[in-house]
Amino acid sequence: MDLVKQLDEHVGSRAEKFYKTTLFRSDALMLGVNCLEPGQVQKPHDHADQDKFYYVVAGNGRFQLADQYITAGAGAVVWAPAGVIHGVENIGDGRLTLLMGIAPAP
Amino acid sequence: MDLVKQLDEHVGSRAEKFYKTTLFRSDALMLGVNCLEPGQVQKPHDHADQDKFYYVVAGNGRFQLADQYITAGAGAVVWAPAGVIHGVENIGDGRLTLLMGIAPAP
Repeated sequence: MDLVKQLDEHVGSRAEKFYKTTLFRSDALMLGVNCLEPGQVQKPHDHADQDKFYYVVAGNGRFQLADQYITAGAGAVVWAPAGVIHGVENIGDGRLTLLMGIAPAP
Repeated sequence: MDLVKQLDEHVGSRAEKFYKTTLFRSDALMLGVNCLEPGQVQKPHDHADQDKFYYVVAGNGRFQLADQYITAGAGAVVWAPAGVIHGVENIGDGRLTLLMGIAPAP
């Protein structure tokens, strides 16, 4: 297995829904990339037993965390603990690229 | 708890050893920042039961993964599965800033 991957070689887009791909996966952690084109949304949801983070690589997102809405751009780290409803909308003009991790892996 | 943090507000340096700080922590995952000044090293080590990743935010590092040495810059995602000896040296001219995660948390 290649243990080093360049994130920008794993970005992509879909017209109908935001793009997601997995970079690495173990029982303890799944690491992936989520890409949202302008206006695309990851609908609010929660993971009962898994903690999740997003790192904003590029773009601007409006994140929902429980009943809070927070706009975050490049360099932001967003933490969605188990049970906390979370989602994100791309409110920028360009692609919103997120490194994300879920622990334990789904 | 503040669920969104700006990574660049959590960078730092120490003269004697690389800098590290924790951003978020649960039983399943610890997320933090590691900063290495030019020439600083994180000595090779392993975690028997924990998977680890680094995301290179800025700078250039020479990563050891088992018996491989890989130079990686901004945008690289490095995966060190449980039991794999890993370490990194800042071989660049500026600070090497890494987002890192360990799952489960140590």
